Amino acid sequence: MKEQIRCAVLGLGRLGYWHAENLASKVKGAKLVYVGDPFGDLAERTARELGIEKFATDANRVLEDPSIDAVIIATPTHTHAEMLEKAAQHGKHIFIEKPLTQSLAEADRAIAAVRKHRVSCQVGFMRRFDGAYAEAKRRIQAGDIGTPLYFKGVSRDPGSPPEAFIKNSGGIFLDMSIHDYDIARFLLSAEATSVSAHGNVLVHSFMEAYGDADQAIAYLSFDSGAAADIEASRNAFYGYDIRGEVIGSEGSLLIGSLRHHDVQLLTRNGSTHDIVPAFPQRFKDAYLNEICHFIDCLRRGEAPSVNEQDGKIALEIALAARESYETGQRIALPGYA
Amino acid sequence: MKEQIRCAVLGLGRLGYWHAENLASKVKGAKLVYVGDPFGDLAERTARELGIEKFATDANRVLEDPSIDAVIIATPTHTHAEMLEKAAQHGKHIFIEKPLTQSLAEADRAIAAVRKHRVSCQVGFMRRFDGAYAEAKRRIQAGDIGTPLYFKGVSRDPGSPPEAFIKNSGGIFLDMSIHDYDIARFLLSAEATSVSAHGNVLVHSFMEAYGDADQAIAYLSFDSGAAADIEASRNAFYGYDIRGEVIGSEGSLLIGSLRHHDVQLLTRNGSTHDIVPAFPQRFKDAYLNEICHFIDCLRRGEAPSVNEQDGKIALEIALAARESYETGQRIALPGYA
Amino acid sequence: MKEQIRCAVLGLGRLGYWHAENLASKVKGAKLVYVGDPFGDLAERTARELGIEKFATDANRVLEDPSIDAVIIATPTHTHAEMLEKAAQHGKHIFIEKPLTQSLAEADRAIAAVRKHRVSCQVGFMRRFDGAYAEAKRRIQAGDIGTPLYFKGVSRDPGSPPEAFIKNSGGIFLDMSIHDYDIARFLLSAEATSVSAHGNVLVHSFMEAYGDADQAIAYLSFDSGAAADIEASRNAFYGYDIRGEVIGSEGSLLIGSLRHHDVQLLTRNGSTHDIVPAFPQRFKDAYLNEICHFIDCLRRGEAPSVNEQDGKIALEIALAARESYETGQRIALPGYA
Amino acid sequence: MKEQIRCAVLGLGRLGYWHAENLASKVKGAKLVYVGDPFGDLAERTARELGIEKFATDANRVLEDPSIDAVIIATPTHTHAEMLEKAAQHGKHIFIEKPLTQSLAEADRAIAAVRKHRVSCQVGFMRRFDGAYAEAKRRIQAGDIGTPLYFKGVSRDPGSPPEAFIKNSGGIFLDMSIHDYDIARFLLSAEATSVSAHGNVLVHSFMEAYGDADQAIAYLSFDSGAAADIEASRNAFYGYDIRGEVIGSEGSLLIGSLRHHDVQLLTRNGSTHDIVPAFPQRFKDAYLNEICHFIDCLRRGEAPSVNEQDGKIALEIALAARESYETGQRIALPGYA
Repeated sequence: MKEQIRCAVLGLGRLGYWHAENLASKVKGAKLVYVGDPFGDLAERTARELGIEKFATDANRVLEDPSIDAVIIATPTHTHAEMLEKAAQHGKHIFIEKPLTQSLAEADRAIAAVRKHRVSCQVGFMRRFDGAYAEAKRRIQAGDIGTPLYFKGVSRDPGSPPEAFIKNSGGIFLDMSIHDYDIARFLLSAEATSVSAHGNVLVHSFMEAYGDADQAIAYLSFDSGAAADIEASRNAFYGYDIRGEVIGSEGSLLIGSLRHHDVQLLTRNGSTHDIVPAFPQRFKDAYLNEICHFIDCLRRGEAPSVNEQDGKIALEIALAARESYETGQRIALPGYA
Repeated sequence: MKEQIRCAVLGLGRLGYWHAENLASKVKGAKLVYVGDPFGDLAERTARELGIEKFATDANRVLEDPSIDAVIIATPTHTHAEMLEKAAQHGKHIFIEKPLTQSLAEADRAIAAVRKHRVSCQVGFMRRFDGAYAEAKRRIQAGDIGTPLYFKGVSRDPGSPPEAFIKNSGGIFLDMSIHDYDIARFLLSAEATSVSAHGNVLVHSFMEAYGDADQAIAYLSFDSGAAADIEASRNAFYGYDIRGEVIGSEGSLLIGSLRHHDVQLLTRNGSTHDIVPAFPQRFKDAYLNEICHFIDCLRRGEAPSVNEQDGKIALEIALAARESYETGQRIALPGYA
Repeated sequence: MKEQIRCAVLGLGRLGYWHAENLASKVKGAKLVYVGDPFGDLAERTARELGIEKFATDANRVLEDPSIDAVIIATPTHTHAEMLEKAAQHGKHIFIEKPLTQSLAEADRAIAAVRKHRVSCQVGFMRRFDGAYAEAKRRIQAGDIGTPLYFKGVSRDPGSPPEAFIKNSGGIFLDMSIHDYDIARFLLSAEATSVSAHGNVLVHSFMEAYGDADQAIAYLSFDSGAAADIEASRNAFYGYDIRGEVIGSEGSLLIGSLRHHDVQLLTRNGSTHDIVPAFPQRFKDAYLNEICHFIDCLRRGEAPSVNEQDGKIALEIALAARESYETGQRIALPGYA
Repeated sequence: MKEQIRCAVLGLGRLGYWHAENLASKVKGAKLVYVGDPFGDLAERTARELGIEKFATDANRVLEDPSIDAVIIATPTHTHAEMLEKAAQHGKHIFIEKPLTQSLAEADRAIAAVRKHRVSCQVGFMRRFDGAYAEAKRRIQAGDIGTPLYFKGVSRDPGSPPEAFIKNSGGIFLDMSIHDYDIARFLLSAEATSVSAHGNVLVHSFMEAYGDADQAIAYLSFDSGAAADIEASRNAFYGYDIRGEVIGSEGSLLIGSLRHHDVQLLTRNGSTHDIVPAFPQRFKDAYLNEICHFIDCLRRGEAPSVNEQDGKIALEIALAARESYETGQRIALPGYA
């Protein structure tokens, strides 16, 4: 087992910063030695704050550093393909935020590069590392619900990101539901064969200009005979609401809860508990767990449990859902036409 | 206010018997004087058991009795149209189980008869009289969630009825989801404009022969700009699972719970509460409340809050959902093509 | 089985009126034919409203009516002893509100009268007929928690009754906790051997003048080796809060919930469900169930499951708790000194 | 702000090991440089495993090391007094596991030493650093429940420690309830004036030989006029059950939940969620948070929020509760006789 994995983080937006913070102080066996971000002095400030040796505004300088074993890519999605290829070419192991890339063509090139240069690649589907989803997977594998037959996913944001983000987000199916597409595969242990998707703009009328929806649902069929429906919403003004269900042949599972703290306030108006406000609170542990898994796999020379291929498949489903939403037709997934 | 409404019950299957039992002993201002059922001595036994004066195997004899003010029709669906018309012709007020009729043509004829003979007609959408759904309606009317934007319905049966029933049931959209179509209209105060529906046979393979599904979802758009998704399932082996959500512009509502008794059992295996086993336990009070409302309206000379027109509209949505499921196309509701 | 039990209700305060209403319209096999109350025209108005033949301001006239089979005594506690003895002398079966009497001496005389005249007597411990407590009893009898070892009771009122009531209430141990003393015996299937009680006035300072407390707890030991703690409070400003727990040798039970409707409101402030506001809402079904049980027993010629002896024992515990609270000493129950 | 606090851990039992692990890899600004334990090669193995420079079997060698800023004392309770005094004499800041000492005399000597040598001292009441209790404190401070009037604590272990431990544990009031005594002070912002305690041996009969109980309750009065009842149990065979309630003048709080994972399993037997099995799972984050607080205070030159005085007061209450249990008398706390 390797003593230490020397890491770099590229992109110091919110997620990139968390990964850096986790690697700098909470991940045994990792040493964060380099951070890169093109914006002003963000890299410099972060390096100083977290006690990191090196920083750069040019990603290439980071990727070319021979002392780096692994790179965390948290740059904007449109740069993913290029970053992936370069990182692979320099022999760096890769942790990349979802989605893998913007298009399937890019995904294929990135996967080819990863394989050619024999590097490890983990995609940031952190829900697999959340205590509730992971426990659900364990329960299913233990046979507690028999054969999993149906997955029902609910993912609701407490509001919409700004218009500038929505414009380049790829739409609600790519930006939000992709997590549930991955989780559905994970929990059902099956591959989607077709998807039908619907949606509406209920609140955020600016989305209409981009053909996006703030409330959407996709219905999926799977090769195992299972099915799923997956809702995504930008309209949960009450908080961040992430739930799942798996109906099985001998029992079912309900995943998630709306609770933030385990405290109920009782007044004349009723019994109130606070709701998880947003994803950082909900998935804080999951973000740490996934990076620990990545480093642990690298140290042990094992393959991460969620890789570039998983990234590509979730992208395929998301793109098919968007096409279904746009055309009103059921879309068969590649290989299941 | 009328002292007493003299009632008859036609059809003494499970629901008809409950209505009879409720009218016989629990509904102030109602007097059950006649029960009718074609099968053997069922009417006679029921009359004796509940202390009812008259019984008959021929529905016509009941409908022709001039002493009867109101009739509860709980006969098989294929007889509804004829029963409705005859009851109206004899000037009886009518409480009829859902669905109103099998076809829209029948529904139109029945509605015409009801109006021509100026009788009251209530349709058995008992969920509107359930404590949880009724409270949700009150909360929405009180403005607690702002404008209702989205309804999410889950209705799951603990298993499938026998094949003989499924064969003539009209399919899962008519037999099960029709309750949620009505409730969606009720809670959103809006009319559906289109529906897309999907489904699969996950467990009960015999359904394939009838083009039915044991797991289905419908996505509805409404004229208010709201939308809805409504799941129906025959696969909740764990119990009877009826839930709803309404997302509003300023808050949301979760309706229903899985609890049967307010008792939790704590053991080494965890904390367990029992789940409502089936619809009689879940909607016992609602069945009583709806009949009380019917009798109360008749005594006061007021119109029931859920009538033949509501019955027809829910039928329209259910038939459109079935068509969408069969054709793979989005179906516009009448008047919204 | 007797066709019909002819009933009278004495005392038309809140509880008496409910019993009258239930008997008049919801209890099969019961016919309410007489109501009595000394105050003004309350009896007359109630008789008219509920369609009852006879009414009186003098309880004796009611008790002397030979056509009456059973009498429901819901008069003030200080009249219980006299009412019980007279009713028994006239051969009436008796349903009496808790507490049985004010003193043990009165209780003994009443019990002697009931036995001498061989009438049935049920005491109004309605919690035994509540769905949650009854289910808990069934679970315990089914062995689901092994041997019951500990009962923890919480009974909280949303405020204090007026000073005039508190003055004659007998104090919090007699007025409130007596329900839990009975339920502890019921669930543990054991008899209390000693009690220690403590309390404070946290809010309602007028109680100090009467030596009463608005927050109290009693610790009980039982002859089976089990124990219990029982809290009573007048300070649950948030609602009516009735809970229980039974720790068993192989599992435990949690009884009750704070939920009123099965509806959760989700807003930026959190997830809120309303709390049962007061005992009528919480125990509405239990009040009906206990009267049905009483009538049913009379029709079948069976003994009610909770009788005058249960009433006396709960009174013994409550009086001992009050004595312990006043003296600071542990009090042994009669027969266990 | 100091860059780094150099730490040592004394006593590498379960809690000591966790503190060492947390300090070694998860606490920014701390550097664990020394571990000590008298047993065999435990110190050596731990040092190697966690990458710590030095280890010793003799606590004195650790305390004499001039490079150490702070020491975490997790040795057996009977050694606390000596360790505290020596650590203070050597000018080390001190984090000490509860209880502070075994006797009040020892506590006074330890407190004198801490003050004389002007070192910081934090006591391991980790519940104050648990998310739920901390949120409750914030809510109370924010005025959400008005004035806190009553605390109700429940602490139940899933079983008894071995007889050898019970023998030297000081009994259930010292070993278990001391946490709730501290939390009651914390949440009520008040000091206890008297305590009455009761208990029984319900299951673990070996405890009778030591005058201990496996089920106990204490009733406390406070100088603010508030009161509390605090249950402790070794009989929660279903799991680790830690709950609290605070009744306030304008609302109440319920603290804690039985849930381990946010997953419910639905089967024919009901809806089951797993229960927290034991304290490591329940208070994992709290143990980390308290050490972070300790280190953070040392770096900032601030006093820890829970100190040796808090340790002494909780001890006073626990000893008084034990005396009350043994004598059957209400015991006044020092200064409130």
